[in-house]
Amino acid sequence: MSQDYKSHFEDLWDFWFRELHNGKAGMAYRVKDVLYSGTSKFQKIDVLDVYEYGRMLVLYGSVMLTERDEFVYHEMITHIPAFVHENPQDVLVVGGGDGCTLRELLKHKEVKEMHLVEIDAKVIEISKEYLSDICQNSFDDPRVKIILDDGFYYLQKTPNKYDLIISDAPDPVPPGDTLFQKEFFQLVKEHLKDKGIFVSQTESPFYHGDIFKKTYKNLSSIFKTVQVYLAWIPAYPGALWSFMFCSDSHDPLGDFNKDKYKQYLDAGFNTKYYNDKIHIASFSLPNFVEEFLEH
Amino acid sequence: MSQDYKSHFEDLWDFWFRELHNGKAGMAYRVKDVLYSGTSKFQKIDVLDVYEYGRMLVLYGSVMLTERDEFVYHEMITHIPAFVHENPQDVLVVGGGDGCTLRELLKHKEVKEMHLVEIDAKVIEISKEYLSDICQNSFDDPRVKIILDDGFYYLQKTPNKYDLIISDAPDPVPPGDTLFQKEFFQLVKEHLKDKGIFVSQTESPFYHGDIFKKTYKNLSSIFKTVQVYLAWIPAYPGALWSFMFCSDSHDPLGDFNKDKYKQYLDAGFNTKYYNDKIHIASFSLPNFVEEFLEH
Repeated sequence: MSQDYKSHFEDLWDFWFRELHNGKAGMAYRVKDVLYSGTSKFQKIDVLDVYEYGRMLVLYGSVMLTERDEFVYHEMITHIPAFVHENPQDVLVVGGGDGCTLRELLKHKEVKEMHLVEIDAKVIEISKEYLSDICQNSFDDPRVKIILDDGFYYLQKTPNKYDLIISDAPDPVPPGDTLFQKEFFQLVKEHLKDKGIFVSQTESPFYHGDIFKKTYKNLSSIFKTVQVYLAWIPAYPGALWSFMFCSDSHDPLGDFNKDKYKQYLDAGFNTKYYNDKIHIASFSLPNFVEEFLEH
Repeated sequence: MSQDYKSHFEDLWDFWFRELHNGKAGMAYRVKDVLYSGTSKFQKIDVLDVYEYGRMLVLYGSVMLTERDEFVYHEMITHIPAFVHENPQDVLVVGGGDGCTLRELLKHKEVKEMHLVEIDAKVIEISKEYLSDICQNSFDDPRVKIILDDGFYYLQKTPNKYDLIISDAPDPVPPGDTLFQKEFFQLVKEHLKDKGIFVSQTESPFYHGDIFKKTYKNLSSIFKTVQVYLAWIPAYPGALWSFMFCSDSHDPLGDFNKDKYKQYLDAGFNTKYYNDKIHIASFSLPNFVEEFLEH
């Protein structure tokens, strides 16, 4: 195809993807190419190549990650708990079939075994095929074991206990909605070892105040410490994203292991968003977010 | 008009406003109503009423503010310097014809005189007419004096000196582009009183790394202290917005007047984003932003 014809074609092919809050406002991306579009047993899955943000994984119409900004989410959901826990050997990731949370956890040499419980085998398959530059073959690491199951049912059955449990949950709509229920959080607690830590992504407090508030209340009824931290993620609705750090033994600020972080830095630990100052600062909340926690 | 007819009409009137980075990715809003659309001597001005974000001021196609999220920008550009300076009596705001920066500054009782230098009288007129619920008649406060002029030329002529100068500049395109030039920053410095502080909005480091880097370099050649702080603003491109705090005498962290902040709180000072913890935390930068400052 000649270059002239190609650019003519690209001008004509004016294809857009939008993720809208209440159908009325949100991010719009001009699509360069649709790399995959199909339906698994559980959901619609699309992999797009969009201008400005690169490759993008979309589940049931919601952006799960984009090549350009995924580093923020995946660094913040992993390194905050991993630099607080003294020795995170056994880690469970619920959801996260794209492999990026694994990629970040693999930077922690204390981790001996990582279990990834993903309900949808197709998400893993598609991520391996289309997002290998992003997830960097993390599935193939010998420390990783993949369990194809619903996170809720897996925890009901397994005797395994973990130092860290990370809920890399999709939005609270099926099939991921069970991962925001009180019963799930109770199961999580029962599968934490002594001094274990649980972190969940908990949506945008700007758009999803009700979910945010309810999740905080549910977690607070189960864990002694529940602390909210925030990160900026431009491709997620509202762009201000929340996580909740839950533990009966650890304070995410007081127990941050700065010495270990510095040793890691000396050994080549590399992040684009997370650092020691961000670790602390991300727990400082704007007034409108703090107000959700007061009632 | 009957309710049925009205909702039928609203469904048909599928009108969208988008602000796109490089024409390829950005926020999209379904428009409820176009309240004003016209052209001043300087620029195209639109006031929209959009779903989810409320009233919106758009200059030459760029969102200046939305009713739903403007509080973040206007609180962060004013309260950070105003709680660092011991006694900010004389304040200059360059740009900011929408009046929201004035609204926040008026919360500081030390402020005796505020000069607003706005190049475009039409922006003020339109803001008074369509955004009065947002700017809350701040133009009418007896402490406020409006000067219709280009900020650059005003500073070339005036003998006035200020405790705080705030550059509430639009994007660095005409007519606002002079407000990002080294010559402007030099003029600002000459018009600061002893122990004066200058703060400028400095675009998104995520989308506008080059402007961000160049502005930091220019400011650093003029002021002893230049410190970057960040805020999340969903309606601004990239959603992660930067400001630079500049001074020859003050450190924005060490000189933060926490006691004054607490006295203000006791007296009813009210913000939706800014607080004492955010004041400190907003100066903690992600690695990818810090890297821009190193070279």
